Amino acid sequence: MEPFNSYVDLLSGEVFPCRQVVVRRLSDMARMFQDQQAAQKLLQEGNPVIYRVFNVVVPEEYGHLQHCISVIFPGKVGQEYFMTKGHFHARKDTAEVYLTLRGNGILILQNQRGETRVLEMRPGSASYIPPFWAHRSVNVGKEPLVFFAVYPAEAGHDYEIIEKQGFAVSVIEHDGKPKVVANPGYPKGG
Amino acid sequence: MEPFNSYVDLLSGEVFPCRQVVVRRLSDMARMFQDQQAAQKLLQEGNPVIYRVFNVVVPEEYGHLQHCISVIFPGKVGQEYFMTKGHFHARKDTAEVYLTLRGNGILILQNQRGETRVLEMRPGSASYIPPFWAHRSVNVGKEPLVFFAVYPAEAGHDYEIIEKQGFAVSVIEHDGKPKVVANPGYPKGG
Repeated sequence: MEPFNSYVDLLSGEVFPCRQVVVRRLSDMARMFQDQQAAQKLLQEGNPVIYRVFNVVVPEEYGHLQHCISVIFPGKVGQEYFMTKGHFHARKDTAEVYLTLRGNGILILQNQRGETRVLEMRPGSASYIPPFWAHRSVNVGKEPLVFFAVYPAEAGHDYEIIEKQGFAVSVIEHDGKPKVVANPGYPKGG
Repeated sequence: MEPFNSYVDLLSGEVFPCRQVVVRRLSDMARMFQDQQAAQKLLQEGNPVIYRVFNVVVPEEYGHLQHCISVIFPGKVGQEYFMTKGHFHARKDTAEVYLTLRGNGILILQNQRGETRVLEMRPGSASYIPPFWAHRSVNVGKEPLVFFAVYPAEAGHDYEIIEKQGFAVSVIEHDGKPKVVANPGYPKGG
């Protein structure tokens, strides 16, 4: 396979050339937010884009490394900040590395026992997501949260556990500041 | 294993905290440069640091991802720009991803048949080094070349082939500009 470059606009996070852009609107994940009334209102007002992922496409095979830029837009659903859906890797024994390039965020991690950890995301933070930790990123700032992510190409994604159960914590705005709180709806479904 | 953050100073490339910093001085790689007279002179004048690597330490096992920041200082040995030693991975079937954060460079790649490719390195360039390609980075600018690198933690390094044979091309300054030229000494040793 031939070596190649992609180019990241370090301000907007856009990647050129990019064959695969994932766009997540509120309608793709409305049930993941706490305040369903606020979610419905936002859906009716225009169904905002919550985040975009610019994927660099490589073979989904051992030895290769998937890499992408995620851009989470600033905003809230009720008091809860815009965030990614979050997932485990389908191959749970694979890690991921984030390098934050712009903005301010909180990375929520949760293991299979439901234990959670949070890490700060700010320009220059390199966050290590070890094997067996689900991960969700939350934009707690006023500008886009832009981060570069790398993971083994065979890792895959398992969204189902998170879609059913959610994370045990949420990040909400409280007195104008981000606060990590227990998620009253956890475990959902299950 | 617990999630953790490292913090990259996006200007200097220094990483905090960092348990493992590799410092390569000219004396560690003097024979890799073409102009041996210039190399000897620089060694006598003070043996400059060519580059530093700030390694984030993770288990060297499947599923983990080694990550580091490399900082190549600006400078030349004769007409040849400062560069890394370059290596294959010991597990040759493993890729690597670079995200350049500062400076201007040229990434030299060479496969096991001795075929070479070059990629530009500039802020925002995401360079994909597929499995089976040796890689060396060259600072062709006037400021430090700073890049973030991620690779499978079990990849390891094989410096021996490159130390014996070198790369088939070099990057030299010609009329004030970087130029990729055939390496007159290739294959060395062999």
